[in-house]
Amino acid sequence: MTQSMWPPALGVFGLIVAFIIYRLVRRYPSGEGAVAEIAEAIHSGAMVFMRREYSILAMFALVLTVGLFIGFQSWHTPVAFVTGALCSAIAGYIGMYTATQANVRTTIAAATDGAPAALSVAFYGGSIMGMAVASMGLLGLGGLYLMFGSDPTHAEAIHGFGMGASTVALFSRVGGGIFTKSADVGADLVGKIEAGIPEDDPRNPGVIADNVGDNVGDVAGMGSDIFESYCGSMIACLALAATMSGATIAALGGDQQQLMFLPLALASAGLLCSIAGIVIVKVFAAKAPAVALRIGTIGATVIFIAVAYFVVANLGITSNVWWCVVCGAAGGMIIGLVTEYYTGGEPVRKIAKDGETGPATVMISGLATGMESVVVPVLTIAAIIFATSALLPEGAGVYGVGIGAVGMLATVGITMAIDAYGPVADNAGGIAEMAEMGAEVREITDGLDEVGNTTAAIGKGFAIGAAGLAALAIIAAFIETIAAKVPGFTLSIENPRVLMGMFLGGIFPFLVSAITMRAVGDAAFEMIKEIRRQFKEIPGLLEGTGKPDNARCVDIATRAALRRMVLPGALAVFAPMVVGFGLGAQALGGMLGGALVCCVLLALTMANAGGAWDNAKKFVEKGNFGGKGSDVHKAAVVGDTVGDPFKDTSGPAMNILINVMAIVSLVIAPLLAANPGGLLG
Amino acid sequence: MTQSMWPPALGVFGLIVAFIIYRLVRRYPSGEGAVAEIAEAIHSGAMVFMRREYSILAMFALVLTVGLFIGFQSWHTPVAFVTGALCSAIAGYIGMYTATQANVRTTIAAATDGAPAALSVAFYGGSIMGMAVASMGLLGLGGLYLMFGSDPTHAEAIHGFGMGASTVALFSRVGGGIFTKSADVGADLVGKIEAGIPEDDPRNPGVIADNVGDNVGDVAGMGSDIFESYCGSMIACLALAATMSGATIAALGGDQQQLMFLPLALASAGLLCSIAGIVIVKVFAAKAPAVALRIGTIGATVIFIAVAYFVVANLGITSNVWWCVVCGAAGGMIIGLVTEYYTGGEPVRKIAKDGETGPATVMISGLATGMESVVVPVLTIAAIIFATSALLPEGAGVYGVGIGAVGMLATVGITMAIDAYGPVADNAGGIAEMAEMGAEVREITDGLDEVGNTTAAIGKGFAIGAAGLAALAIIAAFIETIAAKVPGFTLSIENPRVLMGMFLGGIFPFLVSAITMRAVGDAAFEMIKEIRRQFKEIPGLLEGTGKPDNARCVDIATRAALRRMVLPGALAVFAPMVVGFGLGAQALGGMLGGALVCCVLLALTMANAGGAWDNAKKFVEKGNFGGKGSDVHKAAVVGDTVGDPFKDTSGPAMNILINVMAIVSLVIAPLLAANPGGLLG
Repeated sequence: MTQSMWPPALGVFGLIVAFIIYRLVRRYPSGEGAVAEIAEAIHSGAMVFMRREYSILAMFALVLTVGLFIGFQSWHTPVAFVTGALCSAIAGYIGMYTATQANVRTTIAAATDGAPAALSVAFYGGSIMGMAVASMGLLGLGGLYLMFGSDPTHAEAIHGFGMGASTVALFSRVGGGIFTKSADVGADLVGKIEAGIPEDDPRNPGVIADNVGDNVGDVAGMGSDIFESYCGSMIACLALAATMSGATIAALGGDQQQLMFLPLALASAGLLCSIAGIVIVKVFAAKAPAVALRIGTIGATVIFIAVAYFVVANLGITSNVWWCVVCGAAGGMIIGLVTEYYTGGEPVRKIAKDGETGPATVMISGLATGMESVVVPVLTIAAIIFATSALLPEGAGVYGVGIGAVGMLATVGITMAIDAYGPVADNAGGIAEMAEMGAEVREITDGLDEVGNTTAAIGKGFAIGAAGLAALAIIAAFIETIAAKVPGFTLSIENPRVLMGMFLGGIFPFLVSAITMRAVGDAAFEMIKEIRRQFKEIPGLLEGTGKPDNARCVDIATRAALRRMVLPGALAVFAPMVVGFGLGAQALGGMLGGALVCCVLLALTMANAGGAWDNAKKFVEKGNFGGKGSDVHKAAVVGDTVGDPFKDTSGPAMNILINVMAIVSLVIAPLLAANPGGLLG
Repeated sequence: MTQSMWPPALGVFGLIVAFIIYRLVRRYPSGEGAVAEIAEAIHSGAMVFMRREYSILAMFALVLTVGLFIGFQSWHTPVAFVTGALCSAIAGYIGMYTATQANVRTTIAAATDGAPAALSVAFYGGSIMGMAVASMGLLGLGGLYLMFGSDPTHAEAIHGFGMGASTVALFSRVGGGIFTKSADVGADLVGKIEAGIPEDDPRNPGVIADNVGDNVGDVAGMGSDIFESYCGSMIACLALAATMSGATIAALGGDQQQLMFLPLALASAGLLCSIAGIVIVKVFAAKAPAVALRIGTIGATVIFIAVAYFVVANLGITSNVWWCVVCGAAGGMIIGLVTEYYTGGEPVRKIAKDGETGPATVMISGLATGMESVVVPVLTIAAIIFATSALLPEGAGVYGVGIGAVGMLATVGITMAIDAYGPVADNAGGIAEMAEMGAEVREITDGLDEVGNTTAAIGKGFAIGAAGLAALAIIAAFIETIAAKVPGFTLSIENPRVLMGMFLGGIFPFLVSAITMRAVGDAAFEMIKEIRRQFKEIPGLLEGTGKPDNARCVDIATRAALRRMVLPGALAVFAPMVVGFGLGAQALGGMLGGALVCCVLLALTMANAGGAWDNAKKFVEKGNFGGKGSDVHKAAVVGDTVGDPFKDTSGPAMNILINVMAIVSLVIAPLLAANPGGLLG
C-alpha cells in the first residue's frame, strides 16, 4: 500500500466505524405509539427537507459544473467539484438520518435505563456525524489526491473539491439556519406567548418543525460548515505547497510531494485520534457526562499533537512545521474558552442585570458584549499568523497558518460528535415533552442538553476560528496560484484596485447578514400566520382533542428556507467571478481580504452576542432578577429573540460566506491568470 | 501677495465674515427673566464642559508634544501638532460660544417675529461654526504651508497639524457623544417614563444637561470631526504630491509645488463658495426654509465645481484632476441621499410596522436596515477609487482619491453651517418649552428642527464618506512616505505581517464601539440616579414650587464623559505607535487597512440604524400604528434608545478612530522608516 492510499483507506475505515456505532444505536429500542409517531414525524420532516434542499442544490451545482467545464475545457475540475459536493451531501445525509433515529432512542433510554445510557445513545448519535464528516473528507479528498495529486498539470483540479463542499455548506447552513430559527421563533411566539402553552407542547403545530429545525441547522448545517473548513484547510496547504519555490522546499525538509501530502497525513492521524476520543468519552460517560465530553475532546487533541510530531518527522519535514500544528490546536482551544466566558460567564450576568432597566439596555449590553468578545479570538488569530510565519522560512508565506488550521481541524471527528450530540439531546427532550412522558425523563434530557450547550458554545467559537484560518490559507493559495503564472503579481494595499476590492469585500458580510436576518423574520411571520390559523380553524386543538397539522408547518418552514437561501448563495458564489473577471485579480484579492476580516469579526460578534443573550434569558429563568414572567425576563426574552438569528443564522453564514468566496477564487485563479487585469483593466 | 499667502489670508477673511455674522446674531434680543436664565444655564454649562474638556485635552496634548519632540529631535512637528490642536479647539470654542447665544435669540425671534426671522438667527448661528471650521483650517494649515511647505526637509512636519486636529476631534466627539447621550437617555427615562412629565419640562433636573449636550455633541463634536477630515484630506494630498516621482508629476502638469498647493487652493475657493451658499440661504429663507437650505448646499457645490475647474487649470494641472474633484463632490451627494433614504424613507416605515410584533422585531429590522445601508455608500467609495485612479497616471496612486475628498469637503463652510443649525433650532425649542412660552412658539421651532433633521441626516452620511476617503488618502500617504525612504517597501496582503495587521486593525472599531456604548449606558445610569434623587429629596420639585439643581446634572454628565473618553482616546493614539514600533511598518499598514474598512462599515451601519430607529419612533408618534402610548410606540422607543448611542456616540467615534490612527501613523512614518521591521522584526 503506497503512502497516498492511506487517507482514502482510513476514510473507508472511519465509515465502517460509523456504521458500527449506528448498529449500536439501533440496538436501543425506538419506542412505540405516540413516541414512535412523533419521532417518525421529525425523522421524515428532516429527510423531506434534505431531499428538497438537495434537489435545489443539484440544479445549482449542475449550472456550476457546466460553467466549470466550459471555463476549464477539461473534466478534472468539474469532477472534483461534483465529488466535493457529493461527499459533503452524503456526510450530511448520514448525519441527519442517524441523528433523527438516535433522538427517540435517547428519550427511551432516559425513561428506562437512566442518564448514563441516555448519554451513550445521544453521544453515539453525534459520533456518527463526526465520523461521517471526517471520513467523507478523507475518502473524497484523499481519493482525488491519489488520482490527481502527483500530476502537476491536474493538481489544481483538486481545488474544485473545496468549491463543491462549500457550495453544499452554503445552502445547508443558510437554508438550515433560516429553517430552524423561523420554526423556533414562530412556534415560541404563538405557542408560548399568545396561546400560553409550554415549549414543545404537542398541541402546537410548529413544534415538530422546531425539532426538525434543530437537526437541519445544528446537525446538517454545522456538519457541512465544519466539513468545508476541514477540506478547505487541507486544500489550501496542498495548493501552497504546490507553488513553493525550491529554496523554501529545501528549507522545510526537501520534498514537495511530502509537503503536499502532510495535511492529509495529519487529518488521517486525527481521524484515529478522534476514534480514541470517542472511546474515552464512552469510558468516562458513566461517571460524569460533562467531564467525559471534556476529557474526550482534550484527550483526543493531546494524543493528536503527540502523534502529529511523528507524522511530521516521518515525512522528513522540519519540526518547526509541527510547532505550527501545536499553534493551531492551542489557538483553537483558546478561542473556544473565550467563547465559553462570553456566553456563560460574567458578561451573561451583566446582561441579565441590565434587564432591570428594560429591553433597550439588554440590547446595548448584549451588542457591546458581542463586539468586545472579538478581541481575544482575533488577537489569537493574529498570534497564530505571527508565530507560524516566524517559525517557517519567509518564502513559506502562510503555509504554516494552513497547517495550523489543519491542526485545529484534524480531530474534527470528536469535535463534530460533541456538536451533533447537542441537538440529539435537545430533540430527545422535545420528544419526551410531546409524548408527555413525565418530568423525570425531561429532567435527564435537560441535563444532557445543558452539558451539550457548554461544549457547543466552545465548538462554535472553534468553528469560527477554524473557518477564518482556513479561509486565510485559501486566500493565500489563491494569490500564490496567480503569482506562479503572472510574474510580479502582488496585492499591495496602496494599489487603488486592491483598496477598492477591500471596500467591496466589506459589503458582503454586512449585506448577507442583513438578508439572512430579514429572511428569518419574514419566514417566522409566515409560520406565525399558519400556527394562528390552525389554532383558530382546527376544532379542539387547544383543548387537546384535535390534531395539529404538523406537516404543513414543516412544509412552510422548508419552502421559506429554500426560497430565501438562493440570493445569499448566489451572491457568495458569483461575486468573486464578477469582480475577478470584471475588475481583475487584484480587486478580487483585495475583496477577499476585506471580506475575511469583516466576516470573522461579524461572526464572532453575532455568535457571542446571541449566545450571551440566550444564556442571560436562561439565567433569569433560573429565578434570578425576578425569574420567569418578571419584567426582567421579558426584557431578556427580547434579547434572546434578536440573538436567535444572530447566533444560528447570520453569524454562521459568515463562516461559509468567506470560505465560499475564497474557494471560488482559488478555483478560478488559473483562468484569471490568463487576464489578470480583468475586462475593465 | 504670493500664491501661498492666499489660504491664510482667506482664513482671516472667513473669520471676519464669521464675526460679522456674529454681530448680526447679537442684534436680536436675548430675552429676559426665565428665558434669559435658562439660556444662561445652557451657555455656561456648555462653556464649563468645554473648559474642563480642554484642560484634560491640554495635558494629553502636552504628553504627545513632548513625545513628538523627543522622537523627532526638532520643534517643527510638535509646533504643527500644537497648532492643529489649537485651531480645532478655537473653532470648536467659537462655535459653541455663539451657538449657545443664537439658540435663545431664535426662541425670541420665533415668539416675536415668526418663522423666517427665527430661521435666519438659527442659520446664522450655525454659519458661524461653519465659517470658523473652514477659516481656522485654512488659516492654520495655510500658515504652516507658508512656513514649511516649500522646504522639503520640513514639509513632513505639516502632518503634525492633522494629528493635533484629530486628537481634539477624538476627545470632542467621543466625550461630547457620551455627554449628550447620557444626558438625553437619563433625562428621558426618569422624566418621561418614570415621572410622566413632558420632554424639556423645566421641573426635570436633567433637561439643561440634555440641551447642553446638543451643543457639546452636535456643534463642537461634529465640528471637530469635520475639521479633522477637512484638514486630513488636504494634508494627505500634500504628502502624496511630495512623494511623487518626476514622471508622474510631469504627467499631471509638471510642477510638484502646484500639486502640493492644489488642496489648499481648492479649499480656499470652497470657502468663498460657502459664503455664497450662506447668502443664497438667506435670500430664499423667507420663502421656504427646507428649500432654502437645500438650494444653499447644492448651489455652493455647483458653484464650487465650476470654480474648481479654473483653479486646477490656473495651476497648470491636467483637467483630469478636476474630474477627481467632480467625482468626490458627486459621491458625497450620493452618499448623503442614500442616508436620507435609509433614515427617512421606506425602511423607516417598515421598522415602525415591525413594532407590531414587539421590540425584538424592531431591533432585528433596524439592525438589518443599518447593515443593508452600507451597500450603496461603499459602492460609491469603491467607484470613486476606481474612477479617480483610472483618471490619473498609475504612479499617482490615490492622489486622485485625496483630491476627491478635498472636493467633497471644500464647501465645509456651508455643510457645517447646516449641521450646526440643527442643534441651535433644537435648543431654541427646548428653551421655549422650559420657559413655558406657549404652543405657537414651540410649533415654529419644531418646524425649524424638522427641516434641520433631514439635512442633518444627509450631513451625517456625508461626514462618514468624507472621513473614509480622507483616512484612505492619509493611509496611502503613510505608505508612500515610508516607501520614499525604504526602497521596495510594499504592503502585500499575502505577507503574513500585513495579514496579521489587518486582523489587529479590525479589533479596534469593534472594541471602541463596545466601550463607547457601555460608557453611555453607565453614564446614563449615574444621571438616572441623580435625577431620581432630586425628585425625591427636593421638596415641591414635581409640583413646580421647588427648583431643580441643574448644575449638578451638568456636572455629572461632564465628569462621566470626561472620565470615559480617555480609554478609547488613548487606544486610538497609542495603538499605531505600539504596533508600528513593535511589529513593524507592514503590520501597521495592514492594521490601518483592516481598521479603515471596518470603521467605515460600522459607522454607516450604526449611524443609519440609529437614524432609522429615531425616525421610526417619530413616525409612530405622528399617529401611525396606534401612535403615542401604544405597544408599537413602546417597541419603537426601545429601538430609539438603542439607536441613540449608535448614531451619536459609537458611530461617529468610528470616523475619528480611523483618522486618528491614520494620521498618527503618517506622523511617525519618518521615524518608522529608520527601522521598518519593528522591534520584533
